[in-house]
Amino acid sequence: MAFVILNGGLLDAEQAALRIDDRGFLLGDGLFETMRAYDGRVFRLEAHLERLARSRAAFRLDEDYPPAELAQLVERLLAANELADARVRITLTRGRHAGGMYLYPASPLLLITAAPMPAAGPASAGLTLAYVGVRFSEHNPIFRHKTLNRLPHLLARTEAAQAGADEALILDERGNVATASTGNLFAVYRGQLFTPPLAAPILPGITRAEVLRLARSEGIPIREDFFSPLMLAGVAEAFLANSVSEIVPIVKVDANPIGSGQPGPVTATLQKLYRALVQP
Amino acid sequence: MAFVILNGGLLDAEQAALRIDDRGFLLGDGLFETMRAYDGRVFRLEAHLERLARSRAAFRLDEDYPPAELAQLVERLLAANELADARVRITLTRGRHAGGMYLYPASPLLLITAAPMPAAGPASAGLTLAYVGVRFSEHNPIFRHKTLNRLPHLLARTEAAQAGADEALILDERGNVATASTGNLFAVYRGQLFTPPLAAPILPGITRAEVLRLARSEGIPIREDFFSPLMLAGVAEAFLANSVSEIVPIVKVDANPIGSGQPGPVTATLQKLYRALVQP
Repeated sequence: MAFVILNGGLLDAEQAALRIDDRGFLLGDGLFETMRAYDGRVFRLEAHLERLARSRAAFRLDEDYPPAELAQLVERLLAANELADARVRITLTRGRHAGGMYLYPASPLLLITAAPMPAAGPASAGLTLAYVGVRFSEHNPIFRHKTLNRLPHLLARTEAAQAGADEALILDERGNVATASTGNLFAVYRGQLFTPPLAAPILPGITRAEVLRLARSEGIPIREDFFSPLMLAGVAEAFLANSVSEIVPIVKVDANPIGSGQPGPVTATLQKLYRALVQP
Repeated sequence: MAFVILNGGLLDAEQAALRIDDRGFLLGDGLFETMRAYDGRVFRLEAHLERLARSRAAFRLDEDYPPAELAQLVERLLAANELADARVRITLTRGRHAGGMYLYPASPLLLITAAPMPAAGPASAGLTLAYVGVRFSEHNPIFRHKTLNRLPHLLARTEAAQAGADEALILDERGNVATASTGNLFAVYRGQLFTPPLAAPILPGITRAEVLRLARSEGIPIREDFFSPLMLAGVAEAFLANSVSEIVPIVKVDANPIGSGQPGPVTATLQKLYRALVQP
């Protein structure tokens, strides 16, 4: 039997239910975080909760569940479910629809779920990506925060799947490379580690920040800057980074192999360093 | 006591509950329609259900509830709630999360709710609009369909409210005038009725189509074309159209009055014709 946290209480997942007037359901009016636990502890939990707090302020959700309380609830849920290696999701919505068609301050609905990590996936050999028609815009805050408005991401992923690829390569409105549907993009070009800047319509990824820290510590030159599909076609290596999948090499974009078409040495170095960080 | 329809059954609203793994809640993976009933019958119900069917096809939701069945359920709900003048909402989601992070065909969750229309609002004197920073993009299908991803619309409305306006005036990525947060935009300029074309990132409004039909029948020249904020500043009249509020004059955009700052004659003519259509 799996447990979840709903509004602060521990419940059997099968008994937990939502009201039909929840704004998360009716309007996508809410936020979430997805995190990974290793040996019973969520990696960089504080960073995830800080990001959530920034998004809550941006979307005017009250602070009914301060970060310290959320951290305790996450810990309680992992213990109740006897989970060591797990993915954990916190969902916060504006709660019951009451105050009109704008973003009013309101006590959020809180849901925390945890599930065991599946055995190592087939993705470790390297992902294939496909450019898609869906673009992310700098004029739309839903791309800078982890909100419940995930249709653009799902549409992008669906387009990629229809092209036979594992993941989507999403452009911004100017035609620069922005992000994948569920991970920040990195590329190695002429010895530098490139990644789109936070001014792009991308999520300020917790793993993105960790990768940049690790690269810096290794003396790898970093360049946070916009770059085009043309440049990406000529890079030596590329990879995605997110909290659940960690660092995953990209071996092909559309019909074009990245570098040799095999995961490269800078990616391997960063994967190894990241693994050393998260291993208990 | 209010009733709702949930997955085909009539339920007390207070007893209706959603599962925590519904994709509408977790990912905004769903669609909706908002309609208005006059004297117990939804106006242009067939047109709303046709639009919903087109969106279902675009987002790969199975046809578990064909239009004829949805129409019967709406009728049943209005009768059960003894509602004559009402707003009705149909919500369809992809149901339980199971098939991965893309838009797979799945049996939808269905929710239909109905609520009495409030007494005529204060908006009849004319709306004030404010330009906002949120923009809608042609590269994002969420703006062409009525999806559960409403944060961009809510953000726009919130920006407008903070500027002291009733509604948001939202631009497309090229800087042309696109739409309000909950209604299609019309303007009267040199005797022509302008409205952004369906190639713009706008909803194909049921009331929009009705207004164009009425204008055509009155011999008012129609121009579906992109136009700029500069042109909008010089129009004689402007109004919004949506199924719930019908046709509502716009009297000011930011600090600039539209025309005389009072609702104009073309708007009044179309309002009168629309009222005659919907009156039982």
